Amino acid sequence: TAPPCTDFDIAYFKAYSHLGVHEEMLKDRVRTESYRNAIRQHQDFIAGKVVLDVGCGTGVLSIFCALAGARRVYAVEASDIAVQAADIVNENNLSDKIIVLHGRIEDVDIEEKVDVIISEWMGYMLLYESMLASVIFARDKWLKPGGLILPSHATLYMAPITNPERYHDSIDFWQDVYGIKMSSMKSLAKQCAFIEPSVETITGESVLTWPCVIMQVDCYTIRVEELQSITANFEFSSMLQAPLHGFGFWFDVEFNGPIGTEANSDSAVVLSTAPEDYPTHWQQTILYLFDPMELKKDQIIEGSVTLSQSIENVRFLNIHIQYCCGGRSFVKQSTMR
Amino acid sequence: TAPPCTDFDIAYFKAYSHLGVHEEMLKDRVRTESYRNAIRQHQDFIAGKVVLDVGCGTGVLSIFCALAGARRVYAVEASDIAVQAADIVNENNLSDKIIVLHGRIEDVDIEEKVDVIISEWMGYMLLYESMLASVIFARDKWLKPGGLILPSHATLYMAPITNPERYHDSIDFWQDVYGIKMSSMKSLAKQCAFIEPSVETITGESVLTWPCVIMQVDCYTIRVEELQSITANFEFSSMLQAPLHGFGFWFDVEFNGPIGTEANSDSAVVLSTAPEDYPTHWQQTILYLFDPMELKKDQIIEGSVTLSQSIENVRFLNIHIQYCCGGRSFVKQSTMR
Repeated sequence: TAPPCTDFDIAYFKAYSHLGVHEEMLKDRVRTESYRNAIRQHQDFIAGKVVLDVGCGTGVLSIFCALAGARRVYAVEASDIAVQAADIVNENNLSDKIIVLHGRIEDVDIEEKVDVIISEWMGYMLLYESMLASVIFARDKWLKPGGLILPSHATLYMAPITNPERYHDSIDFWQDVYGIKMSSMKSLAKQCAFIEPSVETITGESVLTWPCVIMQVDCYTIRVEELQSITANFEFSSMLQAPLHGFGFWFDVEFNGPIGTEANSDSAVVLSTAPEDYPTHWQQTILYLFDPMELKKDQIIEGSVTLSQSIENVRFLNIHIQYCCGGRSFVKQSTMR
Repeated sequence: TAPPCTDFDIAYFKAYSHLGVHEEMLKDRVRTESYRNAIRQHQDFIAGKVVLDVGCGTGVLSIFCALAGARRVYAVEASDIAVQAADIVNENNLSDKIIVLHGRIEDVDIEEKVDVIISEWMGYMLLYESMLASVIFARDKWLKPGGLILPSHATLYMAPITNPERYHDSIDFWQDVYGIKMSSMKSLAKQCAFIEPSVETITGESVLTWPCVIMQVDCYTIRVEELQSITANFEFSSMLQAPLHGFGFWFDVEFNGPIGTEANSDSAVVLSTAPEDYPTHWQQTILYLFDPMELKKDQIIEGSVTLSQSIENVRFLNIHIQYCCGGRSFVKQSTMR
């Protein structure tokens, strides 16, 4: 008979949950190659400079920066993957350049100012469990005037979406199951399938019109207070006659240089998580309506959306959408837990 | 701002975890249609009789039995999906025939003997979180002599498997990540990826030779004591030169009539979860070795396997494999939690 679960086992399971996350992020080529391309583009700025990597994970971005000529890289990571990051730095003979610090950015000691802050801080829907507040903290404490932040800008988008297949699979399915009527399940199925935002990959064909910009982040200037609650108005004009099933959210980030440098917006590397672009591990985030609404071509949907930290738990994100369509008003509210 | 999470929300989330499981099982056509075919095959036996459905879920098997002419069906379900099962029974106008009992089979009152017991009790690897003990309890308490049990027989198989892609994706991946050496991650990656049994779908090409039978269950006669620990010997002769990556387990169940009835093994419905058959939600269960072993063609792997309830938690399944190969002895031990 096998021995009971040991602390050793449990430590490994914890490590695995981390490892799985890091494996997924590393295998996301759109993400990792965008960062590599951006580092290469800013190589002249980075060479000979001091870099701070906020939430370094396995250390891949720190190593890219060291290989781009950074003089020193502070790689800060709160989770236990920091142990592996230090091993990887050693294995690549970069321990003279990269200093792995195991702790929260708010707690570590760095005794010099830095020229560059790099971080992969974006969460689902940009803001869910995002580390942007830690990047702001690091910027205000350590970044030299004129320093570089990668990425420099982020934009959150919203658009009405249609997804008949998803609705059919989750809800219409119960209409007839092997000849048995199960439509009494539909109400529960709707509540259960659509009460929380859904992280899933949709295609450009699901998007009913051009997206609206809900939020623009300038990492050089944004203040942490601005993240507590964001409200934006929208007006969509449906390009198709189709059932409206919900609202989709996605983001992109740009890797611009500091204001006044030559690296301008036109040539900047962009990492996009839009439905029409190659899928990433962020996918898209969809708020489904409990019941679809038939839209006519050119029909207007106007309203406002508020994203705010939950009172219950600051890691949760509340999403509140008010909208008018066809002379009627609606509210859709959801919490990403 | 949105209200905090209510008990109502929490109840829905609980329900959803159930709902998702039942949706997955219903959408498994191999599973559900095998049961329907078996019920139709035994329709002459079932017509006019009393049926007990152990763990009825949404009630689909109970309804199949009622539609096959059962006089009365007791549909017993411990989880809250019993509420929905009763709604579905009503919706199909079968509440005069089907009595949904919300409770554990060990706790409910049924005041008559039954002619038929039907249950979908099989777990991953047949025995993991299986409800077979509840079926045995029901049989011993309520089944009339000469009664029918569906399924009647189950067989658990084991075979050596090769899966270079899986090993490559999880372990070799760390050799070179965007030009960065991460081989220091391999040891952790092996432990983490392979410490627990893996439920996944493999194809017949991954199976290195004919499977051995590890366990045969006759639902008419098996006693609950026999489930606590099962040991079987095996001898495999590899049909290929290939790396051995682990051992795979799968099962099938048969729907035979009681001994002495006309429905014999040759015509019985079989529900198979083997890699060469159409995939089911049970998939296959693989115990991966931490390091692959090169096998020659016709090389012998012999040993024994023990499956036992964990002392730590009776729902956990311990798997202990001893085997000899190429003059060396090995032990592989794992717990399915």
